[in-house]
Amino acid sequence: MKRDSAAFRKKRFSGAAQENQSEMTTEPEQPLLLETVSGPDDLKKMSEPDLVRLAGEIRALLCRLSEKRSVHFASNLGVVELAVALHSSLDFSKDRLVWDTGHQCYPHKILTGRYRQFPSIRTFGGLMGYPNPEESPFDLFMTGHAGCSVGSALGLSLADAILRPEENRHAFAVIGDGALASGVVFEALNLAGGLKHPLTVILNDNKMSICGRVGGLGLYLDRLRLNPMYKKIKNGIRRAIDAVPSVGTSTGDLISRLKDSVKAGITGGMLFEEFGFRYIGPIDGHNIPLLRRYLTMVRQFREPVLLHILTEKGHGYRDAELDPARYHAPSPNLVHHHTPQGETAEPPAHGRKTDSVAIPEARSVRSKQDRTAPGISAAEMLPNDSDPDMPGAHSYTHWARNAIYRLMCEDKRFCVLTAAMAQGTMLEPIRRLFPDRFFDVGICEANAVVTASGLARAGMRPIVDIYSTFLQRAYDHLFQEISLQHLPVILMIDRAGVVGADGPTHHGVFDLAYLRPLPHFRVLAPADAREVEPMLRWAARQDGPAAIRYPRATAVRLEREPAAIAEGKAEILRSGPDGAVAVLGERSSAALAAAEELAAEGLLDLEVINARFAKPLDTETLFRPLREGKFLLTVEEGVLAGGFGSAVLEAACDAGLDSRKIRRVGIGDCYTPHGTRDELLVLTGLDKDGIKKALLQFKDK
Amino acid sequence: MKRDSAAFRKKRFSGAAQENQSEMTTEPEQPLLLETVSGPDDLKKMSEPDLVRLAGEIRALLCRLSEKRSVHFASNLGVVELAVALHSSLDFSKDRLVWDTGHQCYPHKILTGRYRQFPSIRTFGGLMGYPNPEESPFDLFMTGHAGCSVGSALGLSLADAILRPEENRHAFAVIGDGALASGVVFEALNLAGGLKHPLTVILNDNKMSICGRVGGLGLYLDRLRLNPMYKKIKNGIRRAIDAVPSVGTSTGDLISRLKDSVKAGITGGMLFEEFGFRYIGPIDGHNIPLLRRYLTMVRQFREPVLLHILTEKGHGYRDAELDPARYHAPSPNLVHHHTPQGETAEPPAHGRKTDSVAIPEARSVRSKQDRTAPGISAAEMLPNDSDPDMPGAHSYTHWARNAIYRLMCEDKRFCVLTAAMAQGTMLEPIRRLFPDRFFDVGICEANAVVTASGLARAGMRPIVDIYSTFLQRAYDHLFQEISLQHLPVILMIDRAGVVGADGPTHHGVFDLAYLRPLPHFRVLAPADAREVEPMLRWAARQDGPAAIRYPRATAVRLEREPAAIAEGKAEILRSGPDGAVAVLGERSSAALAAAEELAAEGLLDLEVINARFAKPLDTETLFRPLREGKFLLTVEEGVLAGGFGSAVLEAACDAGLDSRKIRRVGIGDCYTPHGTRDELLVLTGLDKDGIKKALLQFKDK
Repeated sequence: MKRDSAAFRKKRFSGAAQENQSEMTTEPEQPLLLETVSGPDDLKKMSEPDLVRLAGEIRALLCRLSEKRSVHFASNLGVVELAVALHSSLDFSKDRLVWDTGHQCYPHKILTGRYRQFPSIRTFGGLMGYPNPEESPFDLFMTGHAGCSVGSALGLSLADAILRPEENRHAFAVIGDGALASGVVFEALNLAGGLKHPLTVILNDNKMSICGRVGGLGLYLDRLRLNPMYKKIKNGIRRAIDAVPSVGTSTGDLISRLKDSVKAGITGGMLFEEFGFRYIGPIDGHNIPLLRRYLTMVRQFREPVLLHILTEKGHGYRDAELDPARYHAPSPNLVHHHTPQGETAEPPAHGRKTDSVAIPEARSVRSKQDRTAPGISAAEMLPNDSDPDMPGAHSYTHWARNAIYRLMCEDKRFCVLTAAMAQGTMLEPIRRLFPDRFFDVGICEANAVVTASGLARAGMRPIVDIYSTFLQRAYDHLFQEISLQHLPVILMIDRAGVVGADGPTHHGVFDLAYLRPLPHFRVLAPADAREVEPMLRWAARQDGPAAIRYPRATAVRLEREPAAIAEGKAEILRSGPDGAVAVLGERSSAALAAAEELAAEGLLDLEVINARFAKPLDTETLFRPLREGKFLLTVEEGVLAGGFGSAVLEAACDAGLDSRKIRRVGIGDCYTPHGTRDELLVLTGLDKDGIKKALLQFKDK
Repeated sequence: MKRDSAAFRKKRFSGAAQENQSEMTTEPEQPLLLETVSGPDDLKKMSEPDLVRLAGEIRALLCRLSEKRSVHFASNLGVVELAVALHSSLDFSKDRLVWDTGHQCYPHKILTGRYRQFPSIRTFGGLMGYPNPEESPFDLFMTGHAGCSVGSALGLSLADAILRPEENRHAFAVIGDGALASGVVFEALNLAGGLKHPLTVILNDNKMSICGRVGGLGLYLDRLRLNPMYKKIKNGIRRAIDAVPSVGTSTGDLISRLKDSVKAGITGGMLFEEFGFRYIGPIDGHNIPLLRRYLTMVRQFREPVLLHILTEKGHGYRDAELDPARYHAPSPNLVHHHTPQGETAEPPAHGRKTDSVAIPEARSVRSKQDRTAPGISAAEMLPNDSDPDMPGAHSYTHWARNAIYRLMCEDKRFCVLTAAMAQGTMLEPIRRLFPDRFFDVGICEANAVVTASGLARAGMRPIVDIYSTFLQRAYDHLFQEISLQHLPVILMIDRAGVVGADGPTHHGVFDLAYLRPLPHFRVLAPADAREVEPMLRWAARQDGPAAIRYPRATAVRLEREPAAIAEGKAEILRSGPDGAVAVLGERSSAALAAAEELAAEGLLDLEVINARFAKPLDTETLFRPLREGKFLLTVEEGVLAGGFGSAVLEAACDAGLDSRKIRRVGIGDCYTPHGTRDELLVLTGLDKDGIKKALLQFKDK
């Protein structure tokens, strides 16, 4: 069985290689090296040319997979050589390796015993698209949110120093330049630098967050990239410094420090040096022999080290190199004409010298910077979303973006903030149309909210457009900067609910529970496409904060003329005498369908309520069935603990109503795995049949 | 009336001045300048010597107040001159001023029209101890948590540029070196630096967080402090650099950049320069004329500027200068023998030159660093808390610290992390006894939790000891790094509930609501002193995360032999046939007292349940009264939305019980003001009488 599978794979991938023979290292006739790798130990026996060949095979495998379905692509192509170098030169059964923002973990998974399961990645029941401690001892943390690798690695290393010092373990964090901007990284750099604790942070600098990096830090890293050219004149300056006379004995020490400081300034990396890290780099992150030598060297250091490596997102796949944002997790039809190049990994002659610091192709680096943004058509910029059947106008994200766009056209007080998710939130056209009122703060959700508070205090009407799960990073600022100040900031909470293949780090299921306790917040969810803009416009007229949550889903259009949005007012979608189901948000369509089926089957004729508000609640509409002795089922795409149904129970208790007539459907006290949205809705009982089943419970009473 | 009050005050404060005539600038015979200041405009008419005299008066006022009651002291003494300089040289009716971690706002409040109300500060109904937009248009944000000033100021400034560009407003953020370490600051520096937007960040560097600063950043700022001495040789090095030949025309631009870089390295502040800020300083933060010149200068810059000023916490009050942590918010009996010096504010000759960069007394700076920690007696280190009547052994904090200490003595896997609150959590002795297992991460709660996750993953049993309100800053990490990873991290949540005079930014009322939805967490609260250690030991035996919350309160000792702690098990404190009250945490004693009174009055004979767990709930014990047709009142010192009572309602609904027999007491959907703990418990209905009143509701049924 295993053998058959191997034979199949061999055929499949050697076939792929054959198509691109001129550009591939793998000879089509040779058996795949990957077939011989059951774990990192197998890499340690390989020659460096074989490791380079292995990297090519991994790249081909990634390209093949991306042809079939949507996976994280460009970021993984960028770290193929790094993963091979790490696992071939170091022993992570002892040492610690944490991948920040774990969607770059595919090569690592392939090399740590999961090659055969790899095709199942991101499918329900298959490998997770992020590191997962349940899959492998080489995955230490499930990492989906950015910036935590440095602190986690520091913690691991501190514990090893206390519990097993004799083993002399070393911890490595691999972090991208996008995630580097996250505040928690600086907090961890500061702590490690202050403790002077050995730790290696590998800065994987590909000049990209998911959608282009922002901030002063990006400009700084650009300067560091130019660094090797400084070497030409470094020695001359060192001589000049040595010629400066010491001004008396008492200042001798100072001058020596000054010289160190100037030298560090010349070799670059002062920012990291000033946090207490030794900065090394930048070096070519696609050169396996060079990486192996540097990794072996930094492993020996007894102090915090930042190793700066330069990579290309989408390396070896030309289209992805040119437009890595589009290829972050491309749809399958985007990846075709399979053309991995991947051969800058061949060790260049100058890379052989251990102490040399070299970047191979300054040209390709700069050409990426100079290229224009991916083309966006006029139709995409000003979509006609009055027709919900128009292609591309289907997601809640799309409807939200268009509503934001129209508000911004009408009134210059409106501005929009996002956190390195301008592509996911479809705000790219707004960035171009309103450059002075569009703020991408980088992977810094906390700061998006803080900055919005300042904008609001000064008279603007900021709209913060962030995914539900990432908004958690700004929780304290939602409290102090927005709720406590009673500021009119609008949260457009995208990806609220189950998100699909990204799994538990990305499901946005806590927002109702964490927003509802904050005073002054109004919390809304549209039932269909046509409620998105009216809700945003209603929120924009309020004098306090409001949050509008919607899932990563196709926006349906319910069959009715929607009533105007009014404070704490629900809408009745269907009337019926046998009881009621109240839905907050997009699951309204499923509940309606369930109710129609139950009526058609002659089992129950139900009222269906579109709750619209989780806060304030429309207790008049929601409690009428209860007051009439009928039952009420609440439905929400979020956790039950503290959520919408919980709010209904609290209000019912306060109103002296009997909770025995209330039941709740939502997400229980456990994590939802990855899978398609439809699979997960079935799993959580939030699909039509799940809601129907919950409604039938009442029939037996 | 106003006049009388002024006369009274004049007498009072000139009296204070008289006592210390030799050390005060204010001549005892002169009327107080403060009496003439009804707002910042009045400062603009004053001469610089008068401004210096005014600073002395403010300092005397602060010392007088600290003699009477506990207020934030040392930090305010440190910014007297800065506040005078800001409001005398700039116009903050247009320009924007945000004080980070607002407990340093007292001089600002005194100068912005609140001199007469000032003695009411931190009392119920009086001035708030933090900036408060409801008090004054000069207070833009209520700031109690650290690190948000830079982002807020940036937001204000961006809005002004869009909405009122013709007014050319400028934004200033004043931030301490402790708060600087907070990740959100770096996120904001990065954004502002990238936007190149005009903004002035005033770094108030007093070498202190509330309890000593930590991390590589602190060492970096120490190096900057030595900076002026570099000037002696700077010109020599500049000449040396100019002598380096340009290597061909193509690299000419590079060399010019290199020179700038080296020059910046010599003038210091590279870290900030690398974020895109222009760094200026350090300058003497107690020199009013110097500050005024620099502030006027940076106001003109059209780029982000960081102005680094050096101050002393407790400046002008010798005891507070020597031990600022102890004098952060000293008890009144600590402040006596009123001896403000405050006279380094006299402009020194070298301060007259606008372009000079000077620090006044390197000696005093270094002597502070070298001094030993405040003495802690052996009794404090190893307290005998078996006797709850022992002085100093009364707070929950004390009992928690001692329990942590004993665990750490027994097992080296236990370690403790805190976030710049080692004094407030009473962990200082543990810092000294277990330096390798004590981690103060600075004002970086998020990183405390992330680092703890790494420690736990590697086999340690980390205890994170943080105030409830500040733990909000780590919410996303409680989700991803602890709950999702199912790691055995113990949260010791101090200050859970109403905290007293610090008010709404500091009340810890959301933790139950935000922790309960997170899978795997156990959430506990001790009813009295004797449950703290057993709960911690129980938590330490679990294989997942646990949170133990307790208020800032004297720990009572309930009259009973407490049952052992067991998973999801409540304890019955009192039996009675008429109904039940279930309390989570410290309010158990108030509920018991209410029940005793009701029984003595012959009104109700009630069962009192110590719930112990908010998650998992002891539904057997809690629901027995309901199943017997009796009522149940839940009591919690936290928000009702999503809290303990909400959990009881959810479970009752799931169990098919009638919620008409349940009522909840807790904090409603609004912010609780500042006042004493007792005043606030009365206000929120959580005192004995409030609980009694809630119980009597049921009698009428």
